Amino acid sequence: MTIKIIGYPTSPPALKVIATLNELGVTDYSFDPPENFLEIKSPKFLAEKNPFGKIPVLIDDGFTIYESRPMARYIVAKYQGKCNKKILYPDDIQKAAIVDQYISTESCYYDPPLYDILFQELFKGFGGGGGPDAEIVNAQHEKIAKILDIYERILEGKQFLTGSDITLADIFHYPTAAYTAKKHKDLWESRPNVKRWIDNIAKSEGVKKTFEDYPVLQF
Amino acid sequence: MTIKIIGYPTSPPALKVIATLNELGVTDYSFDPPENFLEIKSPKFLAEKNPFGKIPVLIDDGFTIYESRPMARYIVAKYQGKCNKKILYPDDIQKAAIVDQYISTESCYYDPPLYDILFQELFKGFGGGGGPDAEIVNAQHEKIAKILDIYERILEGKQFLTGSDITLADIFHYPTAAYTAKKHKDLWESRPNVKRWIDNIAKSEGVKKTFEDYPVLQF
Repeated sequence: MTIKIIGYPTSPPALKVIATLNELGVTDYSFDPPENFLEIKSPKFLAEKNPFGKIPVLIDDGFTIYESRPMARYIVAKYQGKCNKKILYPDDIQKAAIVDQYISTESCYYDPPLYDILFQELFKGFGGGGGPDAEIVNAQHEKIAKILDIYERILEGKQFLTGSDITLADIFHYPTAAYTAKKHKDLWESRPNVKRWIDNIAKSEGVKKTFEDYPVLQF
Repeated sequence: MTIKIIGYPTSPPALKVIATLNELGVTDYSFDPPENFLEIKSPKFLAEKNPFGKIPVLIDDGFTIYESRPMARYIVAKYQGKCNKKILYPDDIQKAAIVDQYISTESCYYDPPLYDILFQELFKGFGGGGGPDAEIVNAQHEKIAKILDIYERILEGKQFLTGSDITLADIFHYPTAAYTAKKHKDLWESRPNVKRWIDNIAKSEGVKKTFEDYPVLQF
């Protein structure tokens, strides 16, 4: 049975989920984008799909789940090892804990400023919200620059966050990096360890396929 | 071997971890609070404990991990079922996914506004940062009120977020609720489903013990 993703395959949260599917070799999925932005705020959508009125939402064999990171965790729990041998979330308790640790730093410190920048410069316009607020963009740019200085130290001598293999934590960091790579080149080019890490994620087979299938929107 | 928690047992993130330990019946842990707020920004702390310069940090049998939610996940992975029969994170893939879903809503929508309120009204003063910024407090109060309206619908007819049993997701929601229960009574008293849910978490044995051992700071 096909996994259905309600959402747009160009949104960074949806791309976390798609890259996870592709890394694990799961090919049987399809998209069901909402007709318009109002649909996800409708009483029917709130009651049946996601009370927070957000996408993506994943439906697999009648099971519905919202929030992109839990969706990706679910995909790993159900499909890891079924289609290929890639391990995105290890069995070992300590190794898994370190993957969780970096999923938390991504979710709490890394993604919010980058997403705020993208909201101002790209997504706000889709909803008819007008141009970017330069003050917000600058403040968030400053915030993520400081966070990336910490990542630069963490990534010293490493290929990926937890060592030599890509994990769910690395995948989660990639979509907002890909989307800001051109316009905020300074963030990604001036830190050699961060640059090597992002390039390594980009080259991983499933991530590569994901961004070939759904190239980043230009802005 | 004793689990060591570097941090203050009165901080909401540390309380997430302690409540998890207590719910699972793990009693062999101790606190090692930093001497002062500057210690966690020292080169030694950043290099050896947490490059983000934050607490709590957990050390268990030589293994170091930072970020409170991953610390609690680690405790569950290692100790669940060892000291009592409480299940905070189920084996069933779909049930676990729904726990993850609510851990994500807690982390992304629920905790940030409540923590911002607590920072303004309580923690900022510890660092000598002066009194609360009323504009920030009001904006965050408005934000969490809207989020709790959604929780009110989610919790209709339920004892806990995922049904009749407490999970890691419920525990994570409790510390910031306990800390704002008096000063922001309107948030917690005006929504009957939310009120029942918070009361249920408070009554759960391990959570109860946690907040008896470490009562909320008054402000």
